[in-house]
Amino acid sequence: MSVELVEPALERALNKAVADVERTLDHLLPKPVDLEARVIEAMRYAIFAGGKRLRPFLVLQTARLFGVGEESALRVAAALEAIHTYSLVHDDLPCMDDDDLRRGQPTVHRKFDEATAVLAGDALLTFAFEVIAHEETHADPRVRCDLVAAIARASGAHGMVGGQMIDLDAEERAVGLDLNGITRLQQLKTGALIAFGCEAGGILGKAAEPARLSLKAYAHDVGLAFQIADDLIDVEGDAALAGKAVGKDAAAGKATFVSILGIDRARQQARMLADQAKAHLDHFDDRADLLRLLADYVVERKS
Amino acid sequence: MSVELVEPALERALNKAVADVERTLDHLLPKPVDLEARVIEAMRYAIFAGGKRLRPFLVLQTARLFGVGEESALRVAAALEAIHTYSLVHDDLPCMDDDDLRRGQPTVHRKFDEATAVLAGDALLTFAFEVIAHEETHADPRVRCDLVAAIARASGAHGMVGGQMIDLDAEERAVGLDLNGITRLQQLKTGALIAFGCEAGGILGKAAEPARLSLKAYAHDVGLAFQIADDLIDVEGDAALAGKAVGKDAAAGKATFVSILGIDRARQQARMLADQAKAHLDHFDDRADLLRLLADYVVERKS
Repeated sequence: MSVELVEPALERALNKAVADVERTLDHLLPKPVDLEARVIEAMRYAIFAGGKRLRPFLVLQTARLFGVGEESALRVAAALEAIHTYSLVHDDLPCMDDDDLRRGQPTVHRKFDEATAVLAGDALLTFAFEVIAHEETHADPRVRCDLVAAIARASGAHGMVGGQMIDLDAEERAVGLDLNGITRLQQLKTGALIAFGCEAGGILGKAAEPARLSLKAYAHDVGLAFQIADDLIDVEGDAALAGKAVGKDAAAGKATFVSILGIDRARQQARMLADQAKAHLDHFDDRADLLRLLADYVVERKS
Repeated sequence: MSVELVEPALERALNKAVADVERTLDHLLPKPVDLEARVIEAMRYAIFAGGKRLRPFLVLQTARLFGVGEESALRVAAALEAIHTYSLVHDDLPCMDDDDLRRGQPTVHRKFDEATAVLAGDALLTFAFEVIAHEETHADPRVRCDLVAAIARASGAHGMVGGQMIDLDAEERAVGLDLNGITRLQQLKTGALIAFGCEAGGILGKAAEPARLSLKAYAHDVGLAFQIADDLIDVEGDAALAGKAVGKDAAAGKATFVSILGIDRARQQARMLADQAKAHLDHFDDRADLLRLLADYVVERKS
């Protein structure tokens, strides 16, 4: 993880979250045994390839606001990371973005093969639901059902998968997108899982409606700021720092926030969204400080 | 649906289940609206392509044994069919079985494109969990969590996906399978979802342990009998009747129950399993009659 421009307190918390979430995933994921070992090796390869674990971090931090037990929060965080990882594995496939590298390592279909990558993604998605439904995630089964329903909505046809569909249509079938279209694309493709990360704490902690709405608003603004920052990294970024190819969107002639707004307005917009996100946290005490720092980090990061 | 050799009572019940499950799916599936409409069109294309709906039928019939409400059973039946359908969509992909036709119609990646097929499968899997977790599936959230956990186990790395992995390893990497290997392959690839279909009624109806174990044993035998019959259809079947290419296993040099046991012993084995399956239903009254007829149908069908 490259963590320039990150506050030391946030850096420590992000690093601790990475370690905690990876330990939890290692414990929860199936072991590569029996005749079907290969697909489990691929699941583990995909999920332990690194990453900032930002979505799990949101679960852990929002859970903390409501005094949720760490074990509960970590299980939901692990499930969310499994879904994010499955989406990357499928997104990297030759029929989708056709990427050979992710975080400097061969993508799953390059390291294994395409069929194994399809299956490993399928199994990671399925695994997430198995983890959430388990009684160790929360003593109250109603809370577990609410989590299953919310993460399914965020991931499905009117969530992340829908966002990927819009993205593909725009690229492959030249379906033109205006600013509203790009916004919907991104709210589904990356925003929905980020929003679930922020929603999860409130579900686990049975938070009151006003607190949930504040976090929803925070998630909305952080999610969009995150995507605009991603688009800026693609235009201005350094491939070595970003750990992935840059300049891809422009090469593909893709409409992005930056291509529509221009670099300066996009940067202003991201900055404004980060400030707005922090304002939504006003009625939380200093337990929300890391979420405040995260809003700044999301727009200032270089990778 | 081609239903020769099927008892009139079973035929009526199967046809009613098809209609009821399809109506439920049409009601529950998202509508093809908004920018992401294409993936929803593909989900609907895949799921309304026909099919015997045997797995949903098992849910409906086992639920009936315990007086479960029809709405509950139909929702779980629809979710199970969504998972079965997603597995077919991904299995048909060029990197997997590379099939152009299913039930005489273009497969999803031929009708749409590969990326849309990957996404439609992903969305169908996700949809299944959203449906089960919803409170309309059962008033008791513990029951809903048990269903989510059970269907996830049946579908995941040590379930259906694991079975597909073993199948691919055997085909692509010439991992040799003996009778035990073939049995594990089939118990995971097709047996696990069939077993869930039989388990679902007991979970919904909070059935006592002995009844659940009887149904589990029934599912085990019916599942294997179903697969042996499939292998026999592939060797002896008529492509027009079967609605799919036959002779594929032999052409691929695949080890199957028939290649290992021979046609006669395979047929005897299927017959024996069907009888054994029926014997497991002995402590149920005549409400289990359709499940008894189904055991015979599974081994006598031509498609």
